[in-house]
Amino acid sequence: MAAGLKIAVIGGGSSYTPEIVEGFIRNYEQMPIRELWFVDIEEGKHKLEIVGNLAKRMVKESGLPIEVHLTLDRRQAIAGADFVTTQMRVGLLAARKQDEHIPIMHGVIGQETTGPGGMLKALRTVPVILDICRDIEELAPNAWMLNFTNPAGIVTEAVAKHSKVKSVGLCNSPINFQKFLAAEYGVSEKDVLAEFVGINHLHWVTSAIVNGEEKMPELLDGGKSYTAKNVPTFGWDADFIRSLGAIPTYYLKYFYMTDTMLADMKASLEKDGTRADVVSRVEQELFELYKDENLAEKPKQLEQRGGAYYSEAAVNLMTSIYNDRHDIQTLNVSNGNIYDFLPADASIEINCVVTGQGPIPLVPQKVPSHVKGLMHAVKVYEQLTIEAAITGDRGIALQALVHHPLVPSVTVAKQLLDEMLEANKKYLPTFFKPEAVL
Amino acid sequence: MAAGLKIAVIGGGSSYTPEIVEGFIRNYEQMPIRELWFVDIEEGKHKLEIVGNLAKRMVKESGLPIEVHLTLDRRQAIAGADFVTTQMRVGLLAARKQDEHIPIMHGVIGQETTGPGGMLKALRTVPVILDICRDIEELAPNAWMLNFTNPAGIVTEAVAKHSKVKSVGLCNSPINFQKFLAAEYGVSEKDVLAEFVGINHLHWVTSAIVNGEEKMPELLDGGKSYTAKNVPTFGWDADFIRSLGAIPTYYLKYFYMTDTMLADMKASLEKDGTRADVVSRVEQELFELYKDENLAEKPKQLEQRGGAYYSEAAVNLMTSIYNDRHDIQTLNVSNGNIYDFLPADASIEINCVVTGQGPIPLVPQKVPSHVKGLMHAVKVYEQLTIEAAITGDRGIALQALVHHPLVPSVTVAKQLLDEMLEANKKYLPTFFKPEAVL
Amino acid sequence: MAAGLKIAVIGGGSSYTPEIVEGFIRNYEQMPIRELWFVDIEEGKHKLEIVGNLAKRMVKESGLPIEVHLTLDRRQAIAGADFVTTQMRVGLLAARKQDEHIPIMHGVIGQETTGPGGMLKALRTVPVILDICRDIEELAPNAWMLNFTNPAGIVTEAVAKHSKVKSVGLCNSPINFQKFLAAEYGVSEKDVLAEFVGINHLHWVTSAIVNGEEKMPELLDGGKSYTAKNVPTFGWDADFIRSLGAIPTYYLKYFYMTDTMLADMKASLEKDGTRADVVSRVEQELFELYKDENLAEKPKQLEQRGGAYYSEAAVNLMTSIYNDRHDIQTLNVSNGNIYDFLPADASIEINCVVTGQGPIPLVPQKVPSHVKGLMHAVKVYEQLTIEAAITGDRGIALQALVHHPLVPSVTVAKQLLDEMLEANKKYLPTFFKPEAVL
Amino acid sequence: MAAGLKIAVIGGGSSYTPEIVEGFIRNYEQMPIRELWFVDIEEGKHKLEIVGNLAKRMVKESGLPIEVHLTLDRRQAIAGADFVTTQMRVGLLAARKQDEHIPIMHGVIGQETTGPGGMLKALRTVPVILDICRDIEELAPNAWMLNFTNPAGIVTEAVAKHSKVKSVGLCNSPINFQKFLAAEYGVSEKDVLAEFVGINHLHWVTSAIVNGEEKMPELLDGGKSYTAKNVPTFGWDADFIRSLGAIPTYYLKYFYMTDTMLADMKASLEKDGTRADVVSRVEQELFELYKDENLAEKPKQLEQRGGAYYSEAAVNLMTSIYNDRHDIQTLNVSNGNIYDFLPADASIEINCVVTGQGPIPLVPQKVPSHVKGLMHAVKVYEQLTIEAAITGDRGIALQALVHHPLVPSVTVAKQLLDEMLEANKKYLPTFFKPEAVL
Repeated sequence: MAAGLKIAVIGGGSSYTPEIVEGFIRNYEQMPIRELWFVDIEEGKHKLEIVGNLAKRMVKESGLPIEVHLTLDRRQAIAGADFVTTQMRVGLLAARKQDEHIPIMHGVIGQETTGPGGMLKALRTVPVILDICRDIEELAPNAWMLNFTNPAGIVTEAVAKHSKVKSVGLCNSPINFQKFLAAEYGVSEKDVLAEFVGINHLHWVTSAIVNGEEKMPELLDGGKSYTAKNVPTFGWDADFIRSLGAIPTYYLKYFYMTDTMLADMKASLEKDGTRADVVSRVEQELFELYKDENLAEKPKQLEQRGGAYYSEAAVNLMTSIYNDRHDIQTLNVSNGNIYDFLPADASIEINCVVTGQGPIPLVPQKVPSHVKGLMHAVKVYEQLTIEAAITGDRGIALQALVHHPLVPSVTVAKQLLDEMLEANKKYLPTFFKPEAVL
Repeated sequence: MAAGLKIAVIGGGSSYTPEIVEGFIRNYEQMPIRELWFVDIEEGKHKLEIVGNLAKRMVKESGLPIEVHLTLDRRQAIAGADFVTTQMRVGLLAARKQDEHIPIMHGVIGQETTGPGGMLKALRTVPVILDICRDIEELAPNAWMLNFTNPAGIVTEAVAKHSKVKSVGLCNSPINFQKFLAAEYGVSEKDVLAEFVGINHLHWVTSAIVNGEEKMPELLDGGKSYTAKNVPTFGWDADFIRSLGAIPTYYLKYFYMTDTMLADMKASLEKDGTRADVVSRVEQELFELYKDENLAEKPKQLEQRGGAYYSEAAVNLMTSIYNDRHDIQTLNVSNGNIYDFLPADASIEINCVVTGQGPIPLVPQKVPSHVKGLMHAVKVYEQLTIEAAITGDRGIALQALVHHPLVPSVTVAKQLLDEMLEANKKYLPTFFKPEAVL
Repeated sequence: MAAGLKIAVIGGGSSYTPEIVEGFIRNYEQMPIRELWFVDIEEGKHKLEIVGNLAKRMVKESGLPIEVHLTLDRRQAIAGADFVTTQMRVGLLAARKQDEHIPIMHGVIGQETTGPGGMLKALRTVPVILDICRDIEELAPNAWMLNFTNPAGIVTEAVAKHSKVKSVGLCNSPINFQKFLAAEYGVSEKDVLAEFVGINHLHWVTSAIVNGEEKMPELLDGGKSYTAKNVPTFGWDADFIRSLGAIPTYYLKYFYMTDTMLADMKASLEKDGTRADVVSRVEQELFELYKDENLAEKPKQLEQRGGAYYSEAAVNLMTSIYNDRHDIQTLNVSNGNIYDFLPADASIEINCVVTGQGPIPLVPQKVPSHVKGLMHAVKVYEQLTIEAAITGDRGIALQALVHHPLVPSVTVAKQLLDEMLEANKKYLPTFFKPEAVL
Repeated sequence: MAAGLKIAVIGGGSSYTPEIVEGFIRNYEQMPIRELWFVDIEEGKHKLEIVGNLAKRMVKESGLPIEVHLTLDRRQAIAGADFVTTQMRVGLLAARKQDEHIPIMHGVIGQETTGPGGMLKALRTVPVILDICRDIEELAPNAWMLNFTNPAGIVTEAVAKHSKVKSVGLCNSPINFQKFLAAEYGVSEKDVLAEFVGINHLHWVTSAIVNGEEKMPELLDGGKSYTAKNVPTFGWDADFIRSLGAIPTYYLKYFYMTDTMLADMKASLEKDGTRADVVSRVEQELFELYKDENLAEKPKQLEQRGGAYYSEAAVNLMTSIYNDRHDIQTLNVSNGNIYDFLPADASIEINCVVTGQGPIPLVPQKVPSHVKGLMHAVKVYEQLTIEAAITGDRGIALQALVHHPLVPSVTVAKQLLDEMLEANKKYLPTFFKPEAVL
């Protein structure tokens, strides 16, 4: 890599952009950036300009020699890049709103990363991501792609299966746990090592080492856990957690506390709408702030947005690859034969040592057999979803939905599928091919 | 084995007994029986006498030199036996009624072989079966145990893991499909070969060869399937079946059509009660018939009972082992590495060649990846259930229930577990140990 | 399949042909043949005519309505065939002679199916077999190919990996053991069931059931074993066999008794030449006999040829596929996950139930861990050999030879490779490409 | 662990002791040692005193507050230890001499860590090591055992299978490669990361990253490699190495260059004796030096001894465990499912991240299929050897030897086994049990 790096941020008009800019500025000494390209699509042009100009002001304030480019030309942004990050949302918040609302109307969890909502988001996103991969293969074959577009596990697996791009999937949930753990014991993040078993948004923390000592037993007894802005906070049942012997990610509440979560979703929907509606309002406020010509730093309010530390995770990963740092990060990579009950090409979320050649996974020390069935079931759904996204085959999409643990029956699956495909028609060209219309 | 065999039937007072007697009589030439021992417990004494006397009349009518013994002394029945079959029901129909009623009251499938009901049946049965195994190990170490006590998959796996008894698990569902297939094409059962992928009460038929030709594509298109008396008949969705590419056992309706099945259960419960209530009435009628001193054959009405062909399956298996027949039967045996995503000691339901040394499994020709997650999830539940049955550990029992795909949440799992353990208190000594009472 | 079958025999000029003809005649009632095509290449035309005319006389004598065709046009022979068998020898006996002589001169086992000799035979044969497969794919896509060209394991695996032809590999070694076992106990072959673990020409018999009883312990103690005409008979060491707990195929003497076998080979080479030389003489005598216009049956002397029962095995397999017979035969098929330490696409030699859809493998009941390393090592050699045969890559060929357990060092491997490739130049177009000459 | 550590060195009278003492002194700031116990057996008392006194002088010279204890009481040395290292040699150099001489006399590689010599060393050592483990389990259950007694892979696996002691196996070969690589590119060891695939003394370097860049292709072309004092230096064949695509450890010359190595061994044996004889002379000289009361540092001459950097590796590992350092070291640990063709409990040599809870293996990025067979074959030998060592079963020992790739036949294996067991009689109580003598 050249000493001065070129970085392309796909979906640059995202409200998260100030966070990643802050990260680049903070890490400049370890990872000098020459060019920073924010790219978005025509519909996102307005937001790109607002947040892009804030980015320019932030860089100027820092005094660093980083060029900031705003563009709608994806190929120009990608050409010769060292890193490409993806943070775009196909269909924007309007599509997310549907992903959440429609399932809830049918008595099913409506969430943007799992269940029927996550599936539709995947069907919209996978073809676009693979299109981006074609550009990277051609214009920046040595670049690393850091994906943090959700559902990150599915998207990462689709890229690994269907392109030659070097890619890693990222989520902020593991870094959140590590920060929680460090805070809990009053130590630095370097002194904790948590082990994560599972796949994206479906992991269990099975070990929490602080200064070389295993703290899991006392964490399980204390009933403490970590959570996030985008998932409602209902405590875990103490007996359940103790007999589980591991701490589930907060996303697992959709699976283990389905009734409570669904009731809460229904109540919210009637009152203020779903998370998409909340995010819409937060985003509007954020972009109002971003427009302020005097603002030259990431505003505090961005922390309400939910994806805390996403950008920190991304900048950490780039810095470690660039510097061959050999530190441990929790990433989404291909399974190989780490979990012998999952296919070799399945994406998993796992601790890795990050080298200049990319991440090398660490073998999990124990995999609770309790959770293997659930992991496997969700992975089957994910693999069928990828196949459906690429082929546009409704039968495969139906199988994906039926075999998702949150979908109660074939009858409901069919209703949801019909309604949701129709609602997403314009983003699903493989499902609605021209000839099919005739 | 001695030319004249000794056979012990545990739970001999079952209403099914006339069927197995009929089978023994019909197969006598290929498998000559010297002694037939029907054993039951004190509470079953009355039924044992009624059905046992019918058995004696049936044998007398046949003119065959088979001795029929009725006893409450299990050890005497087992000593020196060549085959031991288990068809007992711990807790009798009263316990089954609870297994079905309690879950339905909580909005969960109430069924005697799967879900919370199946779990409680397993918790009651496993310790008793292992007790029987201790007797077999001591008194008839060369005997084969044929288990057709439900949940047959769990019981068979518990025996394989915790005893040295040579055992096989049996279900009538596969033989039902083969008979359906033969009837459908107007051929003899010898001319069909169906392939079953899965575990007990959770299998998929992936291939149906009739006279050497694969008929699966036309079966899927025709929407035909097989069913049974004890499972309500709702047709499969045609799109679903076609995209699945396999025919699910009727037990899979609890998983794929949960809403329909549950609604039906609730309606039945309010009207006539559950299947346990129906069976109670059928049994009463049967035993009335059995009392008839003039009856010396299996009455037609037994076919209403639900377990059609169970006894045929059992007699077939014994005859093939005895004669080293090398025919193909679908049985419950240990996995080995047939399914690489399940543990080696998991019980699976699979085609086997039956030799004088027991069954040898045939490698499944294709395993649809769609269904691996569900198979794995239910197997995790089964393994936790066995562990709970043996240890009496409530935490493990809770994990089993939570991870069963039919249980909607930790909250419901805890309520069900508390209520159902309490209701089964007298049959669960490992859970309610004396010291725990103090 | 049409009621009257068409069968194509590639390498029809082989001295074995009268045996397969005898088999077809004997099995006619169960498998009616309409057309029998014997095809050979220009260099084999003379032998084809001699043995083909004997075949015609044999059929005429039988009075059966089978047409016998002799041709040099392979495509005509294959078009519309139901079964294609391959029994050709690329390079004829002259090449075999080199395969045997050259290694012995370098102090290495010289054998036509394993070691350097087997490798060169594979390098010559694989491209020709795949060429035949191209014809079958085009002209007889539903045909089964029965391969009994050596090295049968490698050839079968190459076909499975690189063509869509339905194929099975055949060897006479398993049927020889079954006949030995039946003779030993004075029972019919139907009453024995032996279990074979391993790959072609590298198997171990781990179980020998006679009328439902395991006879392996007494066979191991008795020191009895089976052997064949083409492998010298030296007895196994009794302590070795007992501690091994299984009976190795006679081909394993090349691995376990390398010193004795090599000394014998050297002595023979100096005296009468190797097996190729013996076979040359036997063949000459056989063809003299075959020329006799009065001969209309398989002459006794053919049994000296070594491959006893090969044709019986082939005819058995065809008959069972044609009749969906569900009997057990030992065949070479793809591993799947039967042996978890070998790749899924590796060919293995294993008991199968033969159906109208082809063979379904039976799971081996026990795999002695002692022999896994040797099996794995030879399979690595086989896989590298296939890759070398297809690519013509000398580096891969070198790796294959170096990693063969019978080759003592890199130095010897290089010498052998150079010399043997050169000696086989005209049969190895992928290694000696035109451009490489320039 | 207490701030001041207690360390027990079993086989403290070894000539290597000054090196480990130097390491402890150098690393004191990161790993403060309170007590250093050197323990040996009666026969080693004299050497223990000489080298122990040198150790005391070295510590005194350093000015550090470390207590040095010399003892013949193993239990006292172990009680309460934080780390136990094993560097003893059962049978001393006299036994090594036999391990090397006897095989060579039979035309087989005679080496102390592999082949028949390695096997006999293992048979002598495993029971003693397990005896030490019994003491550690009782007296220092939290201690880590660092084993660098050869054959380190076998010994480590025996400990993992048959004790509860937390243990790691160590070899200096990987650290030698890393130092070679760093020197080659003129960088610090922190800037290189090599990947090792294989098992102890049978590994292949498959990747060599220097400052984030893969250097393997140029290393293969350059023909450079690493070597060691105890293995004769014959260069690798360039074609072989290039087509292998990996750099074999120098121990692999016994397998890949058997003829050259054996010829060299025979020549040496006739001239100066084997390595055991050389080491005897070197040791005598070293102990003469050690006696010098003025010597208070590790003498230069120790570097001739062969095991260069062994102690550095050991001290590094202890320091990383003590400090939860998360650095990468190449260690011998249990396989789990890293190599899917080896048993889960097999020891393997692999890169690990070292934490306060011990090493966590990194998943190998590529495993050349060429070498899997050889790895598997040697592992089979290793596992049979462990079983033989524990049971004293000659049949199993014979199977181990027969299946070792360096042993040419059953005949030779039997001769070697008889002669070598007899020669080691006094160190093999399980093979020569009292009752067997009667």
